[in-house]
Amino acid sequence: MWYALFMKKIVLDCLGGDNGLPAMLAGAISALQKNPELQLVLVGDESVIKPQVAEFGNRVEIIDTKVNIAMDEHPTQAIRTKTDSSLVLGLEQLKQREDCGAFVSAGSTGAVLTGGFMKIGRIAGVSRPALCPTLPTMQDGQDFMLLDCGANMDCTPVQLAQFAVMANEYKKATGVENPRIALLNVGSENIKGNEVVKQAHVLLRQLSDAGMINFVGNIEGDQVFHGNVDVVVADGFWGNVLLKSIEGTVKFVFKSVKNVMMSSFGGKIGALFLGGKLKKFKAEKMDKTNATIFLGLKKAVVKMHGNADAVKVASALQYATTVVDFDLNARIEAALTQAEPLLVKNA
Amino acid sequence: MWYALFMKKIVLDCLGGDNGLPAMLAGAISALQKNPELQLVLVGDESVIKPQVAEFGNRVEIIDTKVNIAMDEHPTQAIRTKTDSSLVLGLEQLKQREDCGAFVSAGSTGAVLTGGFMKIGRIAGVSRPALCPTLPTMQDGQDFMLLDCGANMDCTPVQLAQFAVMANEYKKATGVENPRIALLNVGSENIKGNEVVKQAHVLLRQLSDAGMINFVGNIEGDQVFHGNVDVVVADGFWGNVLLKSIEGTVKFVFKSVKNVMMSSFGGKIGALFLGGKLKKFKAEKMDKTNATIFLGLKKAVVKMHGNADAVKVASALQYATTVVDFDLNARIEAALTQAEPLLVKNA
Repeated sequence: MWYALFMKKIVLDCLGGDNGLPAMLAGAISALQKNPELQLVLVGDESVIKPQVAEFGNRVEIIDTKVNIAMDEHPTQAIRTKTDSSLVLGLEQLKQREDCGAFVSAGSTGAVLTGGFMKIGRIAGVSRPALCPTLPTMQDGQDFMLLDCGANMDCTPVQLAQFAVMANEYKKATGVENPRIALLNVGSENIKGNEVVKQAHVLLRQLSDAGMINFVGNIEGDQVFHGNVDVVVADGFWGNVLLKSIEGTVKFVFKSVKNVMMSSFGGKIGALFLGGKLKKFKAEKMDKTNATIFLGLKKAVVKMHGNADAVKVASALQYATTVVDFDLNARIEAALTQAEPLLVKNA
Repeated sequence: MWYALFMKKIVLDCLGGDNGLPAMLAGAISALQKNPELQLVLVGDESVIKPQVAEFGNRVEIIDTKVNIAMDEHPTQAIRTKTDSSLVLGLEQLKQREDCGAFVSAGSTGAVLTGGFMKIGRIAGVSRPALCPTLPTMQDGQDFMLLDCGANMDCTPVQLAQFAVMANEYKKATGVENPRIALLNVGSENIKGNEVVKQAHVLLRQLSDAGMINFVGNIEGDQVFHGNVDVVVADGFWGNVLLKSIEGTVKFVFKSVKNVMMSSFGGKIGALFLGGKLKKFKAEKMDKTNATIFLGLKKAVVKMHGNADAVKVASALQYATTVVDFDLNARIEAALTQAEPLLVKNA
């Protein structure tokens, strides 16, 4: 396709994450094979990487380093001092080069967020960038974006309202008209919730009344899968609780289903017919939460699960190609400027 | 068994909940049939109830009323003005009668909590009673108690520490030695979390160092099912997010598994062998979260899901029989008195 000529390169941190270089490299190779238009900048040990990617010619660039930021290092200190780490070098590629569109890493959340914040910088007007995974629903083809889910603790109502404005622009850029935005809460009534969420509810309603977003009200944790909303706004603490409990419950139920299958002869026969299908469903639908954009930065930074394997790395790289060309900066800046008088009034 | 002679009666609010009298009555009858020692005080429309429970003789008492507190009524106002409602009359039976050990209702959470708070009253020293569902884990026979999960918004660190102390006494009363108590958080490290949870972490550590509880540290939403803790402490807002997302995810996964089964011939054959087993598993393991004690009151108040059907009502009544004789008041009062100097110092 014609636009392939202009597809921006994706920078991959090959040393971050629990599974390190072997998983990153296998994932990169798989993604390159699947998507012939994909071009990568791989940041890691060149002596290991180079022989394995020779077949892809100039579709792959390598930035050589053996220095990694470990999962338990202090984020700010690591970003400041380890200037030759794969994380810092990769972010600098993204920042400096026009032909690079996104950076992908399975490194520690703190280090990726701090690095993105310090090296890439925020879009004008953004108070706090937010981690925004996309989650599936019961309706085919309908997913929802959850933000924030762990980058920001103790958010203010104004920050929650900013998340809604940013997500609105992101969703519109992906082709969703008039995205339905909901607020994570413990009940549907306006008066429900803690103090922060009650005040955020008022702000979102005002933004909606002014035509800036389409606020559809509160949503409870058991309704997010119904497929009736496009965005769920939350403080990073509650959002993280929601995200992780979804992940944990999926694992729990699948393990339990497997136990049920294996505990009787009839179950084992059922498993023969069903096991593969369930595994495929789980991989296709539930493992999507792996790649998460850090929304509000000037260029796309994508965080993978720390335990991402080759399959998830390939999927995250493919996801990254879909977000590089949204050109969200101008849209988000304009939307926040428009919303600012209302938000400042209520700050 | 000899203690059957002394088993306390359970009071059931027969009008509360989405499914009203038919579901409550069917559940009560089912429970009476299953447990020959069970004795109930049914609060509701006597003209409907009486003919259906004749077979149980003096195992059933009826308190006649047709007045219900609807799901959307303002809790405090409803409890104050509707003194002839099934909820208020039932709570008064529990309060006044020594032969009644617990009250069970599917009425609105707000009304049941407010009613319990106003009519039954708190154990001395308890700042906030908490809703405490019991949830299953991947380890057979190992469950955990989550508190609070919706009664209290904007909890202070001291209140979270009190939840830990109360749950510790409850769990010990059920036979768990040295209950493992964890704090819901977004990471395992001590420095993780929002301000409230960071301060709560310090308090729980101090209580643990003083030998008053066994604090095992932070727990994330994806680890609660591993079966390594007996109690998860949370603010009512986050706890509710956790609980509801678990419920929603279970429904989502089961519906998706069903779709996978029904979408192919092989899947349908698999379903023939497995469908019933999965349904049984779900009913036995996952629907247990239905009944939730309101811990910290002078007598046991049990809240069911608003949508509780006959099966869940029967299960909640059975659960209620297991909590009436713990005689927690003295234990919780003593434990809070012991913890108070430490908590006051940090308040």
